[in-house]
Amino acid sequence: MIDNDLFHPRSIAVVGASAGPMNVHSQMFLDNLVGFGFQGKIYPINPGTAEISGLKAYPNLAAVPGPVDLVTSLIPAASTPRLIRECVAAGVKTVQLFTAGFAETGEPEETRLQDEIVEIARQGNVRLIGPNCVGIYCPASGITYCSDFPREPGDIAFITQSGSYTYLTVRMAAPRGVRFSKVVSMGNAADVNEIELLEYLAEDPDTAVIGAYIEGTRDGARFFRVLKETAERKPVIVIKKGSTAAGRRGTSSHTGAMSGDDMVWDTAIKQAGAIRVEDAEEMVDLLTTFTHFPVPQSRRTVVVGAGGGVSVRASDQCEAGGLVLPPIPDKLRDQLAGHISAAGSMLRNPVDVLPERVGQSAWEAILGALDSWEDVDLFLWQICPEIEPFREEEFRKMVVEVRRGMMGTFRRLSKPKAVAVQAVESGPGLASLDALRTICQEHEIAFYPSVVRAARAIGLFMDYQSRTKTGSAG
Amino acid sequence: MIDNDLFHPRSIAVVGASAGPMNVHSQMFLDNLVGFGFQGKIYPINPGTAEISGLKAYPNLAAVPGPVDLVTSLIPAASTPRLIRECVAAGVKTVQLFTAGFAETGEPEETRLQDEIVEIARQGNVRLIGPNCVGIYCPASGITYCSDFPREPGDIAFITQSGSYTYLTVRMAAPRGVRFSKVVSMGNAADVNEIELLEYLAEDPDTAVIGAYIEGTRDGARFFRVLKETAERKPVIVIKKGSTAAGRRGTSSHTGAMSGDDMVWDTAIKQAGAIRVEDAEEMVDLLTTFTHFPVPQSRRTVVVGAGGGVSVRASDQCEAGGLVLPPIPDKLRDQLAGHISAAGSMLRNPVDVLPERVGQSAWEAILGALDSWEDVDLFLWQICPEIEPFREEEFRKMVVEVRRGMMGTFRRLSKPKAVAVQAVESGPGLASLDALRTICQEHEIAFYPSVVRAARAIGLFMDYQSRTKTGSAG
Repeated sequence: MIDNDLFHPRSIAVVGASAGPMNVHSQMFLDNLVGFGFQGKIYPINPGTAEISGLKAYPNLAAVPGPVDLVTSLIPAASTPRLIRECVAAGVKTVQLFTAGFAETGEPEETRLQDEIVEIARQGNVRLIGPNCVGIYCPASGITYCSDFPREPGDIAFITQSGSYTYLTVRMAAPRGVRFSKVVSMGNAADVNEIELLEYLAEDPDTAVIGAYIEGTRDGARFFRVLKETAERKPVIVIKKGSTAAGRRGTSSHTGAMSGDDMVWDTAIKQAGAIRVEDAEEMVDLLTTFTHFPVPQSRRTVVVGAGGGVSVRASDQCEAGGLVLPPIPDKLRDQLAGHISAAGSMLRNPVDVLPERVGQSAWEAILGALDSWEDVDLFLWQICPEIEPFREEEFRKMVVEVRRGMMGTFRRLSKPKAVAVQAVESGPGLASLDALRTICQEHEIAFYPSVVRAARAIGLFMDYQSRTKTGSAG
Repeated sequence: MIDNDLFHPRSIAVVGASAGPMNVHSQMFLDNLVGFGFQGKIYPINPGTAEISGLKAYPNLAAVPGPVDLVTSLIPAASTPRLIRECVAAGVKTVQLFTAGFAETGEPEETRLQDEIVEIARQGNVRLIGPNCVGIYCPASGITYCSDFPREPGDIAFITQSGSYTYLTVRMAAPRGVRFSKVVSMGNAADVNEIELLEYLAEDPDTAVIGAYIEGTRDGARFFRVLKETAERKPVIVIKKGSTAAGRRGTSSHTGAMSGDDMVWDTAIKQAGAIRVEDAEEMVDLLTTFTHFPVPQSRRTVVVGAGGGVSVRASDQCEAGGLVLPPIPDKLRDQLAGHISAAGSMLRNPVDVLPERVGQSAWEAILGALDSWEDVDLFLWQICPEIEPFREEEFRKMVVEVRRGMMGTFRRLSKPKAVAVQAVESGPGLASLDALRTICQEHEIAFYPSVVRAARAIGLFMDYQSRTKTGSAG
């Protein structure tokens, strides 16, 4: 069982830390702790140096004056058995091993080395995270390996067998207002693994939603039982990779886990009541939805925003994602017609309206009329900077400012609402996306980088909600 | 039949141009001609003004001192019958109508108005583009409605029933080095339509590849015959929208065209030998491929680039796109092992190597060894800025500069090659994407904003190439 202390160590020793500007691993695991405001003691361990990053360094763990709860290992794999023995002797609770070169190589020698350190740790009552991982990001404790991860905690947990996916997920999620309780990169998961982490997070009062990136598991039966028990308590969203033929070749050499047949996994994940998503982008879309989106009464959606062709595109994409766009009744159309010129726009759903062109009072009137429309239960505002006729920076910034005000009106609508910035790839388009995403984050509005992703995420969210409701009703 | 003069008018009159900074349509269709360097005469037409944007204005077409080849209409729909009559009288060859409020409204009155102006134009030997369109972008002639479209011409043509898609396509394609011969927004296509444009472009010596966005056609049999004849001469890539139930509702009110059943369209497009793509993103991916990618001998691909988890992801995505990743033979692995540390990286395909970490000479040796590997015929370099541990602007720029040099090495490989910048959504990630895309454009290397998009575009490209080869062999 994972102890709560694992995420709240009183002190951290970084073994293999070293001085100098080129020591990127020291910067990741030592300097970032200081910069992030970790409140406990920090001990750099290096026999050849007196001071590292302004902290007194120690030659080994035995020389450290106080207790050490967490050790981060940056030393070569061959030296790790001795390190784990020292950790046992020093009463260390947890070791996270950035160190690689174990079972993931597929070589018998390295696999034996991994077994050896696990054995030493178990005998000595030390927990291992990894090896071959970036370990723990826990903003509430001030633990990070990355300076640009958010410092504020949130209620989303993410566990992963790929260190890359912590960067992908946190960095994509952060600018959309998603914040984390615990993120754990478990690497080869030689000791602490996906099963124990799920058990822990199911109980964790600081975690409301759990995301997981899984390549494989050593105990399928237990994994799916725990996944089911966890999913009964909290939403669990799963990326399962490496089950295609090409992916399997990659996976076995990545973490040493067996990845298995994709269809078997797919069925088992869904039967457990978890949500399976395609990849990191869809994971982040779902985390955004769970963070910002109240549960709508239905999938009936009104889309507002710009452009003939992009409205057709939005219709297709909403439908593909499982949303329903009811036609606008005549009476409502007459009401809207007072604010939208019919020429060049379509008084249908999607409602083809450029808020920055009609102005604030018309925008308020249009949204108000749509908010009273009883046939729809959610709003999607699509913005497409790529189709605006002018792109000069000054103009672009002005439009963003106008939209900032209009986002306030949008926010006050009574129905759940989301913003999708559509198909943005040019330089100025990317800048607009970034600015609009920031505004949505300020307003705590769910933001998606395309209509198709918004529709698909909200569709999966609604699938989950209706399953859960059925479950409790049944 | 469309005359070549349509794209090379000697003079343009902009009817409804007006002075003042808020006249966005004047800026689009008048000021941009001046800024773009249109070499012919430009005549603003407005009865109330003597000068617009530094050009002498005329009260009407009859007052213009020389011949007018092309008229752009910005006036209200109700005034267009009179305008078309004036055009007939003045010997105007083509009128492009930005003016909307015709058949796209779905209203009988407005549909009749459209029929009326078509009738006047046909009787008077004037061609109409639109109505409800942005008309022609032809950089070779200096014609544009958008200041940031590229001024250099290329050999890609794009025709569309949605004005939005001209912006989407040109702006997404431009930073990837794709340049255009002619882009035509045909709006309601009341006169000049998709069929005639295909016939023209099939013959056009300046056009090598044709893209088309289609919502519907008035003469399906003729459209598919012409599409087939065109596709026999040049690659034709088609977006077909508005065939879903939701899309159909949108389409009928967008251009007034019948959109039809999606499966029927899909089959007919493929039988005609054209390439159907999902949407603007995939269109641009294909245009990029046709612009920069030589035809590889096979789909066997070696992927180089960073990260355990993202390599697994790349395997899956390449396979999904129809590419094949052969395993690395032992001999080659031994060769590579001299340059890549095995710990934490996988000597498999994808080859998990960070060029900016191994350095220039190792990068050259690795690429050289892979270039001699006979089992693969194309290279894909995946770069994932989202998983780099540091993101400070200074560091980011330094990494981009290192990669600029390494792109030179990559460019000199003997096999076809592409770069994919993977899953980029954070602010610094977007900045890296933009910088790397620019470097690829400078080196004329095919760039894709994700591995899955690269794989899918190259897969579709290879499908097309093998069909064409079979066709000529049979």
